[in-house]
Amino acid sequence: MGQEEIRRHNVGTLLRHVHLSGSLSRAALAERMRLNRSTIMALTAELTAAGLVREERPTETGRAGRPSLVVRPDSSRVYVLAFDVAVDRLVAARVALGGIMLDRREAVRPRAGADLDCVVKVLAQFGQQLHQAAPPGSVCVGVGASYCGMIRPGDGMVRFGPDMGWVDQAFGTELGRRLDLGLPVPVGNEAHLGALAEQQRGAGLGLRNLIYLHGDVGVGGGIIVGGKLLDGDSGYGCELGHMVVNPYNGRPCGCGSRGCLEAEVGERALLDAARRPAEWFGRDAVRAVVDDADRGDPVAQGALRHVGDWLGIGVANLCNLFNPGMVIFGGMLREMYPGAAAQVRARIATNALPVARERVRLRISALGDDATLVGASELGFSELLADPLGVLARTAR
Amino acid sequence: MGQEEIRRHNVGTLLRHVHLSGSLSRAALAERMRLNRSTIMALTAELTAAGLVREERPTETGRAGRPSLVVRPDSSRVYVLAFDVAVDRLVAARVALGGIMLDRREAVRPRAGADLDCVVKVLAQFGQQLHQAAPPGSVCVGVGASYCGMIRPGDGMVRFGPDMGWVDQAFGTELGRRLDLGLPVPVGNEAHLGALAEQQRGAGLGLRNLIYLHGDVGVGGGIIVGGKLLDGDSGYGCELGHMVVNPYNGRPCGCGSRGCLEAEVGERALLDAARRPAEWFGRDAVRAVVDDADRGDPVAQGALRHVGDWLGIGVANLCNLFNPGMVIFGGMLREMYPGAAAQVRARIATNALPVARERVRLRISALGDDATLVGASELGFSELLADPLGVLARTAR
Repeated sequence: MGQEEIRRHNVGTLLRHVHLSGSLSRAALAERMRLNRSTIMALTAELTAAGLVREERPTETGRAGRPSLVVRPDSSRVYVLAFDVAVDRLVAARVALGGIMLDRREAVRPRAGADLDCVVKVLAQFGQQLHQAAPPGSVCVGVGASYCGMIRPGDGMVRFGPDMGWVDQAFGTELGRRLDLGLPVPVGNEAHLGALAEQQRGAGLGLRNLIYLHGDVGVGGGIIVGGKLLDGDSGYGCELGHMVVNPYNGRPCGCGSRGCLEAEVGERALLDAARRPAEWFGRDAVRAVVDDADRGDPVAQGALRHVGDWLGIGVANLCNLFNPGMVIFGGMLREMYPGAAAQVRARIATNALPVARERVRLRISALGDDATLVGASELGFSELLADPLGVLARTAR
Repeated sequence: MGQEEIRRHNVGTLLRHVHLSGSLSRAALAERMRLNRSTIMALTAELTAAGLVREERPTETGRAGRPSLVVRPDSSRVYVLAFDVAVDRLVAARVALGGIMLDRREAVRPRAGADLDCVVKVLAQFGQQLHQAAPPGSVCVGVGASYCGMIRPGDGMVRFGPDMGWVDQAFGTELGRRLDLGLPVPVGNEAHLGALAEQQRGAGLGLRNLIYLHGDVGVGGGIIVGGKLLDGDSGYGCELGHMVVNPYNGRPCGCGSRGCLEAEVGERALLDAARRPAEWFGRDAVRAVVDDADRGDPVAQGALRHVGDWLGIGVANLCNLFNPGMVIFGGMLREMYPGAAAQVRARIATNALPVARERVRLRISALGDDATLVGASELGFSELLADPLGVLARTAR
């Protein structure tokens, strides 16, 4: 590694620590980055001059000696735009360093029939409104988007968006063109971004190994291994919804296979088990089952147990394969999980090896439906955090 | 990162490149390490002085200009001892930089009833013989061992060795004590080490995402994600043999569960499907089924197809989860796979998403039964490659 590369790396790493922690003393930064205090001071000075962090005297610690200055992200100089295309809504937000949501717009999305043009139009309009409402002098340094489908790494192409019927739609490119901010729009799969968000700011704070299951119509996954999102050879790993759990009596799955986890635990599986009419769907229909179960309705309770058993087999398999520190249930699974937890735990106890399960914690998403949006904002910040001063020099022209 | 840390990192990285590639020009090293040639020259000089590499004029290239010197590992100065406790044999080897097997000893191991003392005694004796036969002036810089069971990370404790009935046996510590070389003995699970060996020197050379399935009595796994072995929260990930593929009609598994991949495709599953007597077991019995199938015996062919179908479900699930570049079949699966390949491929085509499977290659282990031993030797080299000059200073006293 050359000198310039190391400096860039260090500046970015310092800003990342401050961005994710909210505030850190110089001493804590020195310890985390294994650098001496004078180097931290120099790096901080660069970031302060660029308007990305502020240094403050800490509130009284009561300890003797001169307290270490606290470094905080400056939330006024730069921001990113984050977008979320979920199965039932379109969201846009302006987000500051430190992950602070400054402003947002949201619209209900009809479940089917939304073409690329229509979705991009709504989001671009939201984006421009947010951009125009930003205070003078603040700069948009990045954009990130979450999409409820399969995304080609690198160019924001939607390979497959099952619920909208999208195939090979240039979503990222098109949104970037319509926003007209001169910035690329990286796009991530909603479950991938949800996993990263929960790890960076949610239930799995700081964990190096966690699995996030995002349920809605289907079941997506984001799997963090050794601190990094598992991508696989071409960026299409983490498809835990298509793990076959019921090969011979399984329900048909949208992928053409049978007995996939998502066929057994997705929205339709739950609604069918609860004997709801075939034309009912969506989050409200799922909530109604959960509410009925809470009120003691045996059919609804049985449906949650039934689905919980399959979910448990899936999660047990994931424990054996990944030995995760935490499994997080997001999207519609966040609402369903409490009523199915006993079955999930029982399956893990039966089907996962003791060493693979003994430390795993099961949690619902802490960020709720914003997990994917938060993940999109972090995608927007990723270039800035890789090279803060370089990005600022480019965008502030 | 501090200066000294960077230098140590660079010295180790250079030696690792040379160790794994066999020989590399200074120019290739400069390119791979993104360093200038004078830095490469200085690093190489340090390693040459320490007797770890040699520089040679390359054979005539036919190109104009002065050819870049070629850096090779020096196989005479240092070596490691590698040990392998497999289900049917005990192996020890003396291995040089560059991965060259200099010498080896091997014994048949009875399948059950071998206690810690007995195993360690044989291996330590082998180790001492190899050590004493080493030429004067050469130094043992590390030891590594592979074991066919569950290993606690960090201290070489066998948590569970199913086929020998070992529970919490301090194998690494005990072998280290008996070898009396003043070196720790890191121990790895055989499938983990097999995966690393195949990636470093075998079928999956240089791949960043691969899965190695090691079949014998059970089915173990080594999963490489983004270039690194998946370890999980407490080091017990990769247990793909206990992924449930047949939850309701599954064969009982040694783990207490039912329908695990290893219960459906392990040695016993194959032998039962081929209607072999319950008292037959081991590699020869498996080979006999494979040979019979090759000769056209329909029962043996049917057994391979049956097991292949379950293996295919397992591999399809792994494709969806990991999007691997390659899946490698090792141990007894190496012999079984060719007769089951059609079923495995059919299941992958049905049960894995196109994007998750389109680039995956299916291969048998290139290193064969030595995969685990090679992996153990790399474990032995790991400290040296992290800090070559530091380790040499410590061991050469």
